[in-house]
Amino acid sequence: MAAAPVWSVDPRTGNPREQVAVEATAGEVDRAVRAAHAVRGSLADRTVRAAFLRTAADLLAEAGEHVIEAADAETALGPVRLTGELARTAAQLRAFAEVVDEGAYLDIHIDHEDGKQTPPWPDLRRYKIPLGVVAVYAASNFPLAFSVPGGDTASALAAGCPVVIKAHPGHPATSELCASVLRRAAVRNGLPEDVVNLVHGFQAGVELVRHPLVAAAGFTGSIRGGRALFDAAAARPTPIPFHGELGSLNPVVVTEAAAAERGEQIGAGLAGSMTMGAGQFCTKPGFVLVPAGGTGDELLKSLTDVVSDSQSAVMLDQRMRDAFVAGVRERSELPDVTAPVTPGAGSEHTVAPGFLTVPAQRLTEDGPHDALLEECFGPVTVVARYETEDEITAVLSRLPGNLTATLQTATEETDESAARLLAALTPLAGRVLVNGWPTGVAVAPAQHHGGPYPATTSTSTSVGATAIERWLRPVTYQTTPDALLPPELQESNPQGLPRRVDGHRE
Amino acid sequence: MAAAPVWSVDPRTGNPREQVAVEATAGEVDRAVRAAHAVRGSLADRTVRAAFLRTAADLLAEAGEHVIEAADAETALGPVRLTGELARTAAQLRAFAEVVDEGAYLDIHIDHEDGKQTPPWPDLRRYKIPLGVVAVYAASNFPLAFSVPGGDTASALAAGCPVVIKAHPGHPATSELCASVLRRAAVRNGLPEDVVNLVHGFQAGVELVRHPLVAAAGFTGSIRGGRALFDAAAARPTPIPFHGELGSLNPVVVTEAAAAERGEQIGAGLAGSMTMGAGQFCTKPGFVLVPAGGTGDELLKSLTDVVSDSQSAVMLDQRMRDAFVAGVRERSELPDVTAPVTPGAGSEHTVAPGFLTVPAQRLTEDGPHDALLEECFGPVTVVARYETEDEITAVLSRLPGNLTATLQTATEETDESAARLLAALTPLAGRVLVNGWPTGVAVAPAQHHGGPYPATTSTSTSVGATAIERWLRPVTYQTTPDALLPPELQESNPQGLPRRVDGHRE
Repeated sequence: MAAAPVWSVDPRTGNPREQVAVEATAGEVDRAVRAAHAVRGSLADRTVRAAFLRTAADLLAEAGEHVIEAADAETALGPVRLTGELARTAAQLRAFAEVVDEGAYLDIHIDHEDGKQTPPWPDLRRYKIPLGVVAVYAASNFPLAFSVPGGDTASALAAGCPVVIKAHPGHPATSELCASVLRRAAVRNGLPEDVVNLVHGFQAGVELVRHPLVAAAGFTGSIRGGRALFDAAAARPTPIPFHGELGSLNPVVVTEAAAAERGEQIGAGLAGSMTMGAGQFCTKPGFVLVPAGGTGDELLKSLTDVVSDSQSAVMLDQRMRDAFVAGVRERSELPDVTAPVTPGAGSEHTVAPGFLTVPAQRLTEDGPHDALLEECFGPVTVVARYETEDEITAVLSRLPGNLTATLQTATEETDESAARLLAALTPLAGRVLVNGWPTGVAVAPAQHHGGPYPATTSTSTSVGATAIERWLRPVTYQTTPDALLPPELQESNPQGLPRRVDGHRE
Repeated sequence: MAAAPVWSVDPRTGNPREQVAVEATAGEVDRAVRAAHAVRGSLADRTVRAAFLRTAADLLAEAGEHVIEAADAETALGPVRLTGELARTAAQLRAFAEVVDEGAYLDIHIDHEDGKQTPPWPDLRRYKIPLGVVAVYAASNFPLAFSVPGGDTASALAAGCPVVIKAHPGHPATSELCASVLRRAAVRNGLPEDVVNLVHGFQAGVELVRHPLVAAAGFTGSIRGGRALFDAAAARPTPIPFHGELGSLNPVVVTEAAAAERGEQIGAGLAGSMTMGAGQFCTKPGFVLVPAGGTGDELLKSLTDVVSDSQSAVMLDQRMRDAFVAGVRERSELPDVTAPVTPGAGSEHTVAPGFLTVPAQRLTEDGPHDALLEECFGPVTVVARYETEDEITAVLSRLPGNLTATLQTATEETDESAARLLAALTPLAGRVLVNGWPTGVAVAPAQHHGGPYPATTSTSTSVGATAIERWLRPVTYQTTPDALLPPELQESNPQGLPRRVDGHRE
């Protein structure tokens, strides 16, 4: 049987651009994993890893024009957005180099022998070591920042784990380009190129998570696909951590006072956030609670105006476009649902942004309207009009987990409901915003990009410095002579690392 | 149908002592979980939680005589060991009070707005919040330290999570006593007693891990039972973290140089460690690689002498005793296996300690001898005699994950194989010891009691300060006014917590 071809497709026309690769067979996945596993020791040196990540950032920036051209041709995200995404991806690689250099992520604890404890303590020294080969599943909607050179890859390499990346079928040419950049960066730093491997094909992704030498996985994508891989990871003879970012509704609550204070501004801000990138962000505000009265009407007028002026957009691929068109149609046909700006099909290859409204009361108990509480990928949001604060909390209590939850409150400190609503939003999400919009995820140490299931399948983040924690496990050395200890744990601290010794930071 | 009775049984005679409780029905489990969930907010105050944990330690110590009497009657572990275990359990509760007071576990990161970043950073503030109701599955072999008042309960309460504990059927009376101590400690600190709940029964344990309001689970027990619960946790509509400590062989490697230097001492030390507590520690050294030649013979002679002098012992219950007798018989009947001191049945209710030997070469590839690489709970160890270092590494490469791995090496720095063997042992375990014995687990910040599967089902520890991390998830507040932030994240740091602000510790 001939190997299945992998085509790069132009979403603006639906036409194939070129054949990029073939789908990996089970044997090829096995070889890729074994190759990565065989070279894992080469990543042991922190200095080399940091240099590798910085070289990767440099080479990615150098290849920028080519990479952006390929990515735009395959995803239609446009050069402006992709230029920003490339800069962010390079910055992310450099940020992880800094994390490696600093070494706080090693979480070193040293407790000297102490006979006065109950029971007595022997000399104990703990740090974190890499888990092994990490499987990375690239996302459709970020061909760079959450794909081959993205956060999962960067954090895994930073941790000292080689990667086998499963390319997303939406941008195979970009994936090949980026993988070659990373492999060149490895070689420039004296590392074997097999610290980074790329495979294509749906079945290859399934083989990958089941491979005995794969030690952990990172995923960004749909609930259905992510859950299937999560289940496969959990069902292995030796289960592995599966860090999946699956889906998020990203609820927003607009208080009465906020709508009264700046309804027009909130409407325009919401329009910008929900249509950005054709609504294809995992942090798109997909559900907004707005007061039912006149102040809410002002907000909706502004939302209507700006969304009406938004252009039709090409989505990442035809399948997503069709799913969007079907999804908004199904939702808009529900009783009491109106579409002040009708979302749906644009031209043959585009979609038109829009939004739906529904009385919040419709969403306070189980029923067909629950479809409005499920993510619809693309440029649409659902505005639920509430009568009372009790209605807000009743609806919030029925939401699944989210990456973000947002409160729009009065900027004057006279909004008595704000504290109560923030307390109701916090259990729903990994990031809580006040008077901001959730799209745009800063790559910062204090960032948390994750949240209760299905936002993520674990309590981890896929963005920010602590994303490295996903690929490590602690190990403690007991009564081990200095000469046999790894340098990180030796008494003299030869690498000058931040450590906690007998309860004190040094 | 009448409720199934729960009996306390004397393992020294096999006779029932008293009916302690009845097994919880599904409805009762549901009520226990809902009761715990309803009062979760009461644990929000760190000062109150720390006081609660300290009161629990005090009351446990006060009730010590009663508790030890009940535990000895149900487990036959003896008052000396149980007195030590009670002291350790009380110290553990106090240690978690200190963790709560200090607040480093909150892992606070604050990044102020920074327009120079790529992309720019808004104000971001992250800390960790409790997950919700934690299900705790008590262990057979530690009726206190890994059961009702043990590390899982202490760390979950420290994190701010109410607990529903599934009692171990081996010590239901002790469990009831300890639960009442914890509930009294709660009330003394103004907390509702439902922050601690106890249920009995196998089916209750299954219901518990499936309950929608249970947010995480901690387990110490067998591979079979733990894996079934892990699978149930992963298969939920909303999967939850399941931190299970399931089983461990705890390999020991004795180098030629170590055996030459102090074979007699190593043999005696091994005998003490493997027979301690009737070999019922999860850290019992169950597999020992010893040189095949004369130095190894010296070690075995000493091991033989001390084990021969060891008394028969009562195991935790009759089922475990029978499993031990059957397990050692099956293993000793394998070709080339000898029993210098035959382990097996003692009197009607006891077992006799012993050990088996086998040529290491028999264990270098798949075959019936693989049974020797599986944990056998009770006072037995397997000594594999090796000819070469290659044989050692070949056998080690076939071992599953472990809580501990131990190297016995020469104390002079002339043991060239030591570094290589330590590197081969580290991937196998969560704690690596040199010239010590793995039984005895210090409750220290640098401790790690966990390891690759099946030692644990996650990368976490169940002992030591970082055990608290299992019951928390991060949440980040973005552009949130100070007045709406939790005090832990407010700009003025009103609680004086350790925080990392703009990359600097304060």
